[in-house]
Amino acid sequence: MELKDIIYGYGEAAKKASLKLAMASTKEKNEVLKLMAKKLRENREEIKIENKKDMEAGKENNLSKALLDRLLLDDERIEGMVIGVEKIASLTDPVGEIITGWTTEEGIKIRKVKVPIGVIGMIYESRPNVTADAAALALKSGNSIILRGGKEAINSNKVIAKILRKALEESNLEKDIINLIQTTERDAVKFLVQMTEYMDVIIPRGGKGLIRAISSMAKVPVIYHDRGLCHTYIDGNVDLEMAYGICINAKVQRPGVCNAMETLLVNKNIADKFLPTMIDKFKKEGVEIRGCEKTREIVSDIKKATIEDWGTEYLDLILSIKIVENTEEAINHINIYGSGHSEAIITNDYNNSNKFSLGVDASTVYTNASTRFTDGAMFGFGAEIGISTNKLHARGPVGLNELTTYKYIVTGDGQKR
Amino acid sequence: MELKDIIYGYGEAAKKASLKLAMASTKEKNEVLKLMAKKLRENREEIKIENKKDMEAGKENNLSKALLDRLLLDDERIEGMVIGVEKIASLTDPVGEIITGWTTEEGIKIRKVKVPIGVIGMIYESRPNVTADAAALALKSGNSIILRGGKEAINSNKVIAKILRKALEESNLEKDIINLIQTTERDAVKFLVQMTEYMDVIIPRGGKGLIRAISSMAKVPVIYHDRGLCHTYIDGNVDLEMAYGICINAKVQRPGVCNAMETLLVNKNIADKFLPTMIDKFKKEGVEIRGCEKTREIVSDIKKATIEDWGTEYLDLILSIKIVENTEEAINHINIYGSGHSEAIITNDYNNSNKFSLGVDASTVYTNASTRFTDGAMFGFGAEIGISTNKLHARGPVGLNELTTYKYIVTGDGQKR
Repeated sequence: MELKDIIYGYGEAAKKASLKLAMASTKEKNEVLKLMAKKLRENREEIKIENKKDMEAGKENNLSKALLDRLLLDDERIEGMVIGVEKIASLTDPVGEIITGWTTEEGIKIRKVKVPIGVIGMIYESRPNVTADAAALALKSGNSIILRGGKEAINSNKVIAKILRKALEESNLEKDIINLIQTTERDAVKFLVQMTEYMDVIIPRGGKGLIRAISSMAKVPVIYHDRGLCHTYIDGNVDLEMAYGICINAKVQRPGVCNAMETLLVNKNIADKFLPTMIDKFKKEGVEIRGCEKTREIVSDIKKATIEDWGTEYLDLILSIKIVENTEEAINHINIYGSGHSEAIITNDYNNSNKFSLGVDASTVYTNASTRFTDGAMFGFGAEIGISTNKLHARGPVGLNELTTYKYIVTGDGQKR
Repeated sequence: MELKDIIYGYGEAAKKASLKLAMASTKEKNEVLKLMAKKLRENREEIKIENKKDMEAGKENNLSKALLDRLLLDDERIEGMVIGVEKIASLTDPVGEIITGWTTEEGIKIRKVKVPIGVIGMIYESRPNVTADAAALALKSGNSIILRGGKEAINSNKVIAKILRKALEESNLEKDIINLIQTTERDAVKFLVQMTEYMDVIIPRGGKGLIRAISSMAKVPVIYHDRGLCHTYIDGNVDLEMAYGICINAKVQRPGVCNAMETLLVNKNIADKFLPTMIDKFKKEGVEIRGCEKTREIVSDIKKATIEDWGTEYLDLILSIKIVENTEEAINHINIYGSGHSEAIITNDYNNSNKFSLGVDASTVYTNASTRFTDGAMFGFGAEIGISTNKLHARGPVGLNELTTYKYIVTGDGQKR
């Protein structure tokens, strides 16, 4: 069979299964999720055997230590994966929620109701626990899923998907709700993201290369989890201790993630007072500082920031600092260089907080808190499949709610136009 | 200047204006809308002069009578356009509406707030009143817009856009909120739909050719207003008079629109009783009937429906009829052949109504009402820019609400992770 036909076969099966799944009750879905958790736990040894194959192949192919670590499934991680599935079973089902409802002049009753999207395509890199995670989130929100994992994790992904499908087979739900692409051929991704006949949305999770490849090929809508070039702006009237604490947290607690701070903007009226201590604290945490001219007039022994720095997501212990005139200049800088992810103002000024919240074009805008809070778990979503940098449909953390769309259910008693 | 640079110039200007517009008050926006209406009314003669140029060119180019009629702006139509703008000024502003809000364990307060999308690209065919309509809807919902009208209406569109921009110039808002592409070069569309740097969404309104061209080129997300292949299913237990009335309305009242019925599905238990009278009524309205084998056993003097008929959006006084076993078969037929637009069940059966509402995958699912109600005005949206056949972001009628997205506004008092 041709690769294209194979992928379209997944598509057709997933679509068909999704139409039945849309009518399943929350109880049916939760019971399967619990059964999946049970089976993953019971088959731990088989998972470890398959994972060992991936680990050995990875070592032979000289994967980096970091990649090998992401690939590894030990007892603890398998248990974490199982608990994740159980957690999803315990979350509120968004499907069927009435968003709003009204009666029109003609007397027809309109309800706007949350319904599953349909078929999700999930494309991800090495971590094999994503297989169970994404499948469980899709199922709970009433969607079929086609999973395309990284080739490094193919054996681990296969065994996990096999166990999940076994649970579906033992239930009243269709096993084709969960589909793992078994081949590692590259073109499979192309067919998947162009299969508008069956796919409703693509969710990629991976590095820049993956994102770029998908955006150049995709015909199906994509929920991107792209760059996070986040700023923190220190306004003229602030609680200095709070500002130090939030900035250290936003930069240092986990510098490699998308909601970490990359550029610090400082109001000129507080720069003299704020920056020497702040930079000192950063240096103690091993952060390399790159400052604008004015910053270097206050603290001289730091590197010079170039225009490239304002547009760079370091994902590392590096920070650029710029002194600005006022809140307007901060907003303007952020709207030019930011990636629309998470932005913060630290201020005691009511008007500047409002101005910043309204004027900054980003998924999440903070006053007096760390940008590190942009996260499904921190938001209380219970679980997340990523953080969207799109503006349409889903913006910010993507949880169960964001995996639904809506339909209008209209009832009448014979109305005609 | 190269065409690409011209289009990118519009993009940059529109984007810049949109960031300021996001901070405008409802009052400011409404005042400009009222000023626009006033200026359109005052400059009626100039509009008619420019429209006459388009009409004359249209006649020279042998445009069809229907197209020429769509192109025409007379006093009555200009007044209709003005009233449309005034109506939009009177609608509730969705921007700033709090969708939901909560406080997390850490004590940070999260508000999910409706905000403008940013920059909308509107691509439309001959009707020049769309210029004022779309611009007013965009402005009211806080978005900039780049308009690309049909070349037949270029003079009419130019004068309308000029008047609207004049009103913006006399206000505190930026004139680059509203931009009309002045050139009629074809490639302008390509640059517009690929300009991801500045555009947030594309809304096309036009025939199949336009939709196909855009879907093959677009890199920016598109809200499609695509096919409406709508069904009405007559269940076994129905009020026959109601069924006749709804079916005639759905097929005959305006057969050329997307929410008109194209295929009638009839439960086998009622077919004998229902179809002879129903088909008779359709024939009296001049509807050509194409029936399945079983339909032709009941009413013999009708054409035979082929498999192509199930997939055809006639947009004309033609109807295909199929007899089905039960609600499940009706749902299944609709999910295979329907376009996800509007679908109806006529029934007195509670369970079948629920099953149909849940099982049919469409933007709007009716019980005992005509599919013709899928419409912004009928839904009470006040105004619409189209009817989305997308599943993500906006589904069904697209009004002011659907021209917004959301952001999370988060406030804390020093929270760190």
